[in-house]
Amino acid sequence: MVENSLLLTDLYQLSMLECYARYGMDATASFEFFVRKLPSRRGFLMAAGLEQLVAFLEGMHYSNEELDWLRESGLFAASFVDDLAELRFTGDLDAMPEGTIFFPDEPVVRVTAPLPEAQLVETRLVNLLHFQTVIASTAARMVLAAPGRQLIDFGLRRAHGAEAGLLAARAAYLAGFAGTATLAANRVFDIPVVGTMAHSFVQAHDDEAIAFERFARVRPNALTLLIDTYDTERGARFVANLAPRLAREGIAVKAVRLDSGDLAAHARAVRTILDEADLQNVRILVSGGLDDRALLSLCSSGAPIDGFGVGTSLTTAADAPALDCAYKLQEYAGRPRRKMSEGKVTWPGCKQVYRHYAADGTIAGDVVALLDETADGEALLHPVMRAGRRCGLLPRLAEARAHAATSLARLPAPLRRLQASGVSVRISDGLRSLADDMDRARRGS
Amino acid sequence: MVENSLLLTDLYQLSMLECYARYGMDATASFEFFVRKLPSRRGFLMAAGLEQLVAFLEGMHYSNEELDWLRESGLFAASFVDDLAELRFTGDLDAMPEGTIFFPDEPVVRVTAPLPEAQLVETRLVNLLHFQTVIASTAARMVLAAPGRQLIDFGLRRAHGAEAGLLAARAAYLAGFAGTATLAANRVFDIPVVGTMAHSFVQAHDDEAIAFERFARVRPNALTLLIDTYDTERGARFVANLAPRLAREGIAVKAVRLDSGDLAAHARAVRTILDEADLQNVRILVSGGLDDRALLSLCSSGAPIDGFGVGTSLTTAADAPALDCAYKLQEYAGRPRRKMSEGKVTWPGCKQVYRHYAADGTIAGDVVALLDETADGEALLHPVMRAGRRCGLLPRLAEARAHAATSLARLPAPLRRLQASGVSVRISDGLRSLADDMDRARRGS
Repeated sequence: MVENSLLLTDLYQLSMLECYARYGMDATASFEFFVRKLPSRRGFLMAAGLEQLVAFLEGMHYSNEELDWLRESGLFAASFVDDLAELRFTGDLDAMPEGTIFFPDEPVVRVTAPLPEAQLVETRLVNLLHFQTVIASTAARMVLAAPGRQLIDFGLRRAHGAEAGLLAARAAYLAGFAGTATLAANRVFDIPVVGTMAHSFVQAHDDEAIAFERFARVRPNALTLLIDTYDTERGARFVANLAPRLAREGIAVKAVRLDSGDLAAHARAVRTILDEADLQNVRILVSGGLDDRALLSLCSSGAPIDGFGVGTSLTTAADAPALDCAYKLQEYAGRPRRKMSEGKVTWPGCKQVYRHYAADGTIAGDVVALLDETADGEALLHPVMRAGRRCGLLPRLAEARAHAATSLARLPAPLRRLQASGVSVRISDGLRSLADDMDRARRGS
Repeated sequence: MVENSLLLTDLYQLSMLECYARYGMDATASFEFFVRKLPSRRGFLMAAGLEQLVAFLEGMHYSNEELDWLRESGLFAASFVDDLAELRFTGDLDAMPEGTIFFPDEPVVRVTAPLPEAQLVETRLVNLLHFQTVIASTAARMVLAAPGRQLIDFGLRRAHGAEAGLLAARAAYLAGFAGTATLAANRVFDIPVVGTMAHSFVQAHDDEAIAFERFARVRPNALTLLIDTYDTERGARFVANLAPRLAREGIAVKAVRLDSGDLAAHARAVRTILDEADLQNVRILVSGGLDDRALLSLCSSGAPIDGFGVGTSLTTAADAPALDCAYKLQEYAGRPRRKMSEGKVTWPGCKQVYRHYAADGTIAGDVVALLDETADGEALLHPVMRAGRRCGLLPRLAEARAHAATSLARLPAPLRRLQASGVSVRISDGLRSLADDMDRARRGS
């Protein structure tokens, strides 16, 4: 369900490739993907999307049917389209593992390949890395905001299309969510899938209590009842009445869900009703327009909430649905390259990021240095593909999720508290002097 | 490239279906899709996504392979999964045509079908209608902000996945964009595709002027040169020098693109350089982080800009990436239904929207009435499917685009100026009294 057609690209990529082909420009190029600046309120980002990127690069080609369409489109010379039949990705990929925390100006991914290949992959590479990074970074804040609570992705319906819903479930799970409501995400990524019921189910019955009872008998496992269709506390009392009868049949009510009104107040009232009926084991799950701030507020209020269903604010990353990111040429034919456009100047050359930790294990600061500089600290970019093939097994999603959890635990305390204070990212002396040299050379030219 | 798997749904839909099956709840249900309130700054919305919804409903089924997976998942009773093999959409669909302007509380789409079918379609129906409506509504503002200018979708790379990029190109074109940079959108939807070059193309050459010349010779048609990689005015002077030589070979420079800095000031300086070289026909296209406010400001400044490339703010609808929308049960087994959850109360029953126009042809106000009420005005929902099959041909995209243009032209002047002033949406007396009756009945119960 993750699309891999190479027609999912900008026309200009193929226009440039046609020109590169005509003039024999196929020397080695290095491009890096990075974020220019953090969205407001954000202090860190979490890398995600690498697994889908590697699958895309490994399988990259035009099908015969696509080549026919390209020929018929009249957009390109026929001989160029013929040559596209041979196109594969034969280059190298270095990247931060999924779940790694990163900051602006740091290369997250580097592609080193013949110029046409490195150029053509741009559109879908950015599309895949950007989106999952947006979602993982948003989900990570929610995970930090609601420690110890179960977080579930409810967002498919408001995600931007099917692929977005599926990949958002993945990125949220990577960042620490417990599961998703999306069935396909269970099939494709083996993410735990959970579900409750909709208001329409209750409304389709003339009697709310009968709706609960029927649902319990048909879906006795992991039974969660939605109790706010008409009146939350009344719904809770129906559950209190029903639970002992169901228990005699061996059916346990696992949770109730609240989806409207003052969620903290309702959770307290419902907790009392359930506890008085000796239903201490019935958990309270809440949903309804929640974002990281709402989670933080509900959790710090001490409301007896055990889990959250999060939809729109997760899968659309509503507060920061896009990052100011770029995939830029850093080196071609052995020479570093630098874009000088106003406000969009890049650091030239191929780079590595070195991380330093404080005595307590938290991130103390990063250094961005040229690949050929010596630097200490933990190098964050690792070889992922060489000559078009993956170097070894990529971490499985569960492993990437464990790495994400470790990474979040090593954030400095202000960032763990979701304050937008930053981590120092230092540009190495070697990188600064290369940039200065290039500026001087250009001004002199 | 538009995904149609029925596993792209929430687990709870199938949980409810299992329960409906056990208790024989397959009477006719009507659900309506509507928006609860406008995003801030917005005064209207544009309906989009119907064509993809109809394709989804017509083709709706579980493949054998999906049924096998459902069986093996252990999530459902085997007999229920067996029954799912027969599931098709056999119901009716009524909808506003794509490109119709609408307002909160107005049903945009109504599904009338046996309860299980009408329930199961919810997730993907909302996913398809919501996203394209978000994008068309955002694009429509840009169209109004930049009258007479060519608008091009540059957004695939930052769209939320592949499907989002493709459908955003469609929704933007529907709303009045002139084209897209996404090659696949040309293939799938026949949307005009346009392209320029990237900074990396210029950077890969040692000399900017040589980069321009090579590109011109290989891509002589619709030639647009990107001139801001190092210095915008210097790039414009290279074009001024190059154009006469190219003209002698029969190659015309069609446009230059500016992507950074003070776009209005650069456009003026570049216009002067081009005009002094007798290049009045070379158009100026600008891009770079533009949203509707930037378009409005650039256009009202009188800057000599002929077209805009719009990316992130279009395909992520960054200022309003989600709508507060819902798909709610309005009637089941011949009786109206009403959700009473705090802050989320719905208007019950099956409804129609009637539009009234002022003498100058602009929208004067809408009335939302029950289907069985008599009302005057233009009825906005039309039959689209009956008994699972489309009633006739859907409007082609070009026709829907013409309808969108007419709809925008009939907006009241303040809305055309992008002011957030509203249009009056009146709830009919019949609808109010049905809602009151249902409240009284519930309170009495």
